[in-house]
Amino acid sequence: MIQLNHIGIAVQDLPAMQRLFALLGLMPAWIESVPDQGVVTHFYPLPLADGALELLEPSDPKGAVSQFISKRGPGVHHLSFMVDKGEMDLLCANLRSNGYRLVYDEAKQGAQGMRINFIHPATSGGVLVELMEKG
Amino acid sequence: MIQLNHIGIAVQDLPAMQRLFALLGLMPAWIESVPDQGVVTHFYPLPLADGALELLEPSDPKGAVSQFISKRGPGVHHLSFMVDKGEMDLLCANLRSNGYRLVYDEAKQGAQGMRINFIHPATSGGVLVELMEKG
Repeated sequence: MIQLNHIGIAVQDLPAMQRLFALLGLMPAWIESVPDQGVVTHFYPLPLADGALELLEPSDPKGAVSQFISKRGPGVHHLSFMVDKGEMDLLCANLRSNGYRLVYDEAKQGAQGMRINFIHPATSGGVLVELMEKG
Repeated sequence: MIQLNHIGIAVQDLPAMQRLFALLGLMPAWIESVPDQGVVTHFYPLPLADGALELLEPSDPKGAVSQFISKRGPGVHHLSFMVDKGEMDLLCANLRSNGYRLVYDEAKQGAQGMRINFIHPATSGGVLVELMEKG
Protein backbone atom coordinates (compact mmCIF):
# COMPACT_ATOMS: atom_id res chain seq x y z
CA MET A 1 0.00 0.00 0.00
CA ILE A 2 1.24 3.48 -0.77
CA GLN A 3 0.57 6.77 0.98
CA LEU A 4 0.94 10.26 -0.39
CA ASN A 5 4.03 11.79 1.14
CA HIS A 6 4.31 15.14 -0.59
CA ILE A 7 3.67 17.20 -3.70
CA GLY A 8 6.77 18.87 -5.15
CA ILE A 9 6.26 22.26 -6.78
CA ALA A 10 8.94 23.84 -8.98
CA VAL A 11 9.20 27.49 -7.99
CA GLN A 12 10.34 30.46 -10.03
CA ASP A 13 9.39 33.28 -7.62
CA LEU A 14 9.94 31.98 -4.09
CA PRO A 15 8.81 35.07 -2.12
CA ALA A 16 5.53 35.11 -4.09
CA MET A 17 4.84 31.46 -3.27
CA GLN A 18 5.78 32.01 0.38
CA ARG A 19 3.30 34.90 0.56
CA LEU A 20 0.55 32.79 -1.02
CA PHE A 21 1.18 29.87 1.35
CA ALA A 22 1.14 32.23 4.35
CA LEU A 23 -2.25 33.56 3.18
CA LEU A 24 -3.50 29.96 2.99
CA GLY A 25 -2.35 29.39 6.59
CA LEU A 26 0.59 27.12 5.69
CA MET A 27 3.94 27.50 7.48
CA PRO A 28 7.27 25.96 6.46
CA ALA A 29 8.49 23.24 8.84
CA TRP A 30 11.96 22.83 7.43
CA ILE A 31 14.21 24.09 4.68
CA GLU A 32 16.96 21.92 3.31
CA SER A 33 19.58 22.46 0.64
CA VAL A 34 20.05 19.42 -1.64
CA PRO A 35 23.06 20.45 -3.77
CA ASP A 36 23.02 17.02 -5.39
CA GLN A 37 19.71 17.83 -7.06
CA GLY A 38 20.38 21.53 -7.46
CA VAL A 39 17.51 22.63 -5.21
CA VAL A 40 16.63 24.10 -1.87
CA THR A 41 13.46 22.38 -0.61
CA HIS A 42 10.93 24.13 1.61
CA PHE A 43 8.57 21.69 3.37
CA TYR A 44 5.07 22.77 4.37
CA PRO A 45 3.17 20.11 6.36
CA LEU A 46 -0.42 19.68 5.27
CA PRO A 47 -3.47 18.42 7.13
CA LEU A 48 -4.67 15.63 4.87
CA ALA A 49 -7.90 14.16 6.22
CA ASP A 50 -9.70 13.43 2.94
CA GLY A 51 -7.11 12.96 0.25
CA ALA A 52 -7.63 11.44 -3.15
CA LEU A 53 -6.19 11.29 -6.61
CA GLU A 54 -8.68 12.33 -9.25
CA LEU A 55 -8.18 11.21 -12.83
CA LEU A 56 -9.76 13.74 -15.16
CA GLU A 57 -10.87 12.03 -18.35
CA PRO A 58 -11.91 14.59 -20.99
CA SER A 59 -15.40 14.00 -22.31
CA ASP A 60 -15.65 17.21 -24.36
CA PRO A 61 -12.89 18.31 -26.78
CA LYS A 62 -13.74 21.95 -26.00
CA GLY A 63 -13.58 21.47 -22.21
CA ALA A 64 -10.82 22.96 -20.06
CA VAL A 65 -9.13 19.62 -19.37
CA SER A 66 -9.06 18.69 -23.04
CA GLN A 67 -7.51 22.06 -23.84
CA PHE A 68 -4.99 21.64 -21.02
CA ILE A 69 -3.87 18.30 -22.51
CA SER A 70 -3.63 19.76 -26.03
CA LYS A 71 -1.48 22.59 -24.76
CA ARG A 72 0.71 20.93 -22.11
CA GLY A 73 0.18 17.19 -22.44
CA PRO A 74 -1.35 15.00 -19.73
CA GLY A 75 -0.26 15.41 -16.11
CA VAL A 76 -1.15 17.14 -12.85
CA HIS A 77 -3.94 19.63 -13.56
CA HIS A 78 -4.86 21.11 -10.16
CA LEU A 79 -4.45 20.82 -6.40
CA SER A 80 -7.67 21.02 -4.43
CA PHE A 81 -7.92 22.22 -0.83
CA MET A 82 -10.82 22.15 1.60
CA VAL A 83 -11.38 25.42 3.44
CA ASP A 84 -13.00 25.43 6.90
CA LYS A 85 -16.74 26.01 6.68
CA GLY A 86 -17.58 29.70 6.76
CA GLU A 87 -14.08 30.86 5.78
CA MET A 88 -14.26 30.64 1.99
CA ASP A 89 -15.52 34.15 1.21
CA LEU A 90 -13.12 35.79 3.64
CA LEU A 91 -10.16 33.83 2.24
CA CYS A 92 -11.11 34.71 -1.35
CA ALA A 93 -11.51 38.40 -0.47
CA ASN A 94 -8.16 38.31 1.30
CA LEU A 95 -6.47 36.64 -1.68
CA ARG A 96 -8.05 39.11 -4.09
CA SER A 97 -6.96 42.13 -2.06
CA ASN A 98 -3.42 40.69 -2.09
CA GLY A 99 -3.35 40.59 -5.88
CA TYR A 100 -4.27 36.96 -6.50
CA ARG A 101 -6.58 36.35 -9.42
CA LEU A 102 -9.63 34.18 -8.69
CA VAL A 103 -11.38 32.47 -11.58
CA TYR A 104 -14.94 33.23 -10.38
CA ASP A 105 -16.17 36.54 -8.95
CA GLU A 106 -18.24 34.56 -6.43
CA ALA A 107 -17.67 30.99 -5.24
CA LYS A 108 -19.70 28.69 -7.48
CA GLN A 109 -21.70 25.53 -6.83
CA GLY A 110 -19.53 22.51 -7.64
CA ALA A 111 -20.00 18.72 -7.45
CA GLN A 112 -21.35 17.24 -4.18
CA GLY A 113 -22.82 20.54 -3.06
CA MET A 114 -19.41 22.16 -2.59
CA ARG A 115 -18.79 25.87 -3.04
CA ILE A 116 -15.69 26.21 -5.17
CA ASN A 117 -13.33 28.77 -6.62
CA PHE A 118 -9.88 28.61 -8.21
CA ILE A 119 -6.72 30.67 -7.89
CA HIS A 120 -5.55 31.28 -11.45
CA PRO A 121 -2.14 29.65 -12.06
CA ALA A 122 -0.82 32.92 -13.49
CA THR A 123 -0.79 34.30 -9.92
CA SER A 124 0.00 31.07 -8.04
CA GLY A 125 3.29 29.98 -9.57
CA GLY A 126 1.84 27.84 -12.35
CA VAL A 127 -0.33 25.77 -9.99
CA LEU A 128 -4.11 25.79 -10.52
CA VAL A 129 -5.38 25.82 -6.91
CA GLU A 130 -8.98 24.81 -6.24
CA LEU A 131 -10.57 25.99 -2.99
CA MET A 132 -13.62 24.07 -1.73
CA GLU A 133 -16.02 24.69 1.13
CA LYS A 134 -18.83 22.43 2.25
CA GLY A 135 -22.13 24.04 1.12
CA MET B 1 -6.86 26.35 7.93
CA ILE B 2 -6.88 24.38 4.68
CA GLN B 3 -6.56 20.65 4.07
CA LEU B 4 -5.53 18.89 0.91
CA ASN B 5 -8.64 17.37 -0.62
CA HIS B 6 -7.38 15.91 -3.88
CA ILE B 7 -4.90 16.13 -6.74
CA GLY B 8 -6.49 16.32 -10.19
CA ILE B 9 -4.62 14.63 -13.03
CA ALA B 10 -5.51 15.29 -16.67
CA VAL B 11 -5.50 11.94 -18.45
CA GLN B 12 -4.89 11.12 -22.09
CA ASP B 13 -4.75 7.31 -21.87
CA LEU B 14 -7.22 6.25 -19.17
CA PRO B 15 -6.65 2.45 -19.32
CA ALA B 16 -2.88 3.02 -18.93
CA MET B 17 -3.40 5.17 -15.82
CA GLN B 18 -5.89 2.68 -14.40
CA ARG B 19 -3.34 -0.11 -14.83
CA LEU B 20 -0.63 1.96 -13.13
CA PHE B 21 -2.90 2.86 -10.20
CA ALA B 22 -3.88 -0.79 -9.78
CA LEU B 23 -0.20 -1.74 -9.65
CA LEU B 24 0.27 0.89 -6.93
CA GLY B 25 -2.59 -0.66 -4.94
CA LEU B 26 -5.07 2.17 -5.56
CA MET B 27 -8.71 1.40 -6.36
CA PRO B 28 -11.34 3.84 -7.68
CA ALA B 29 -14.05 4.70 -5.17
CA TRP B 30 -16.38 6.52 -7.50
CA ILE B 31 -16.66 7.69 -11.08
CA GLU B 32 -18.74 10.72 -11.96
CA SER B 33 -19.53 12.44 -15.23
CA VAL B 34 -19.38 16.25 -14.99
CA PRO B 35 -20.67 17.34 -18.42
CA ASP B 36 -20.50 20.96 -17.28
CA GLN B 37 -16.72 20.74 -17.17
CA GLY B 38 -16.36 18.29 -20.01
CA VAL B 39 -14.84 15.52 -17.88
CA VAL B 40 -15.48 12.19 -16.29
CA THR B 41 -13.74 12.12 -12.91
CA HIS B 42 -12.37 8.94 -11.35
CA PHE B 43 -11.71 9.28 -7.61
CA TYR B 44 -9.02 7.17 -5.92
CA PRO B 45 -8.92 7.62 -2.11
CA LEU B 46 -5.41 7.94 -0.75
CA PRO B 47 -3.98 7.18 2.69
CA LEU B 48 -2.36 10.48 3.62
CA ALA B 49 -0.57 10.16 6.95
CA ASP B 50 2.44 12.41 6.28
CA GLY B 51 1.46 14.93 3.63
CA ALA B 52 3.32 18.07 2.75
CA LEU B 53 3.78 20.57 0.00
CA GLU B 54 7.40 20.94 -1.02
CA LEU B 55 8.53 24.08 -2.78
CA LEU B 56 11.52 23.28 -4.98
CA GLU B 57 13.72 26.33 -5.30
CA PRO B 58 16.37 25.81 -7.99
CA SER B 59 19.90 26.39 -6.72
CA ASP B 60 21.74 25.16 -9.82
CA PRO B 61 20.79 26.33 -13.33
CA LYS B 62 21.82 22.91 -14.68
CA GLY B 63 19.70 20.99 -12.15
CA ALA B 64 16.58 19.04 -13.13
CA VAL B 65 14.17 21.50 -11.49
CA SER B 66 15.75 24.48 -13.19
CA GLN B 67 15.48 22.69 -16.53
CA PHE B 68 11.88 21.76 -15.79
CA ILE B 69 11.03 25.44 -15.21
CA SER B 70 12.84 26.54 -18.39
CA LYS B 71 10.92 23.98 -20.42
CA ARG B 72 7.42 24.04 -18.85
CA GLY B 73 7.35 27.01 -16.50
CA PRO B 74 6.90 26.73 -12.73
CA GLY B 75 4.25 24.38 -11.32
CA VAL B 76 3.71 20.91 -9.92
CA HIS B 77 6.89 18.91 -10.51
CA HIS B 78 6.27 15.52 -8.87
CA LEU B 79 3.99 13.49 -6.59
CA SER B 80 5.79 11.53 -3.91
CA PHE B 81 4.44 8.34 -2.32
CA MET B 82 5.67 6.34 0.66
CA VAL B 83 5.86 2.60 0.06
CA ASP B 84 5.52 0.16 2.98
CA LYS B 85 8.91 -0.84 4.34
CA GLY B 86 10.30 -3.90 2.54
CA GLU B 87 8.04 -3.52 -0.51
CA MET B 88 10.04 -1.05 -2.61
CA ASP B 89 12.15 -3.50 -4.62
CA LEU B 90 9.22 -5.79 -5.34
CA LEU B 91 7.04 -2.87 -6.45
CA CYS B 92 9.79 -1.52 -8.71
CA ALA B 93 10.39 -4.96 -10.25
CA ASN B 94 6.66 -5.34 -10.78
CA LEU B 95 6.38 -1.91 -12.41
CA ARG B 96 9.39 -2.61 -14.63
CA SER B 97 8.04 -5.96 -15.78
CA ASN B 98 4.78 -4.18 -16.67
CA GLY B 99 6.59 -1.78 -18.97
CA TYR B 100 6.98 1.23 -16.66
CA ARG B 101 10.28 3.07 -16.92
CA LEU B 102 12.08 3.70 -13.62
CA VAL B 103 14.67 6.46 -13.47
CA TYR B 104 17.24 4.46 -11.43
CA ASP B 105 18.19 0.82 -11.97
CA GLU B 106 18.31 0.39 -8.19
CA ALA B 107 16.56 2.50 -5.54
CA LYS B 108 18.95 5.27 -4.50
CA GLN B 109 19.73 6.91 -1.18
CA GLY B 110 17.70 10.13 -0.88
CA ALA B 111 17.28 12.82 1.80
CA GLN B 112 16.54 11.70 5.39
CA GLY B 113 17.84 8.19 4.78
CA MET B 114 15.05 7.30 2.37
CA ARG B 115 15.46 4.87 -0.49
CA ILE B 116 13.95 6.50 -3.57
CA ASN B 117 13.16 5.87 -7.20
CA PHE B 118 10.97 7.61 -9.79
CA ILE B 119 8.54 6.43 -12.44
CA HIS B 120 9.41 8.37 -15.58
CA PRO B 121 6.53 10.65 -16.64
CA ALA B 122 6.74 9.26 -20.18
CA THR B 123 5.21 6.02 -18.85
CA SER B 124 3.00 7.49 -16.10
CA GLY B 125 0.75 9.88 -18.00
CA GLY B 126 2.97 12.93 -17.68
CA VAL B 127 3.24 12.68 -13.87
CA LEU B 128 6.70 12.29 -12.34
CA VAL B 129 5.98 9.80 -9.51
CA GLU B 130 8.51 9.49 -6.68
CA LEU B 131 8.48 6.29 -4.63
CA MET B 132 10.07 6.39 -1.16
CA GLU B 133 10.81 3.70 1.40
CA LYS B 134 12.21 4.24 4.89
CA GLY B 135 15.86 3.07 4.81
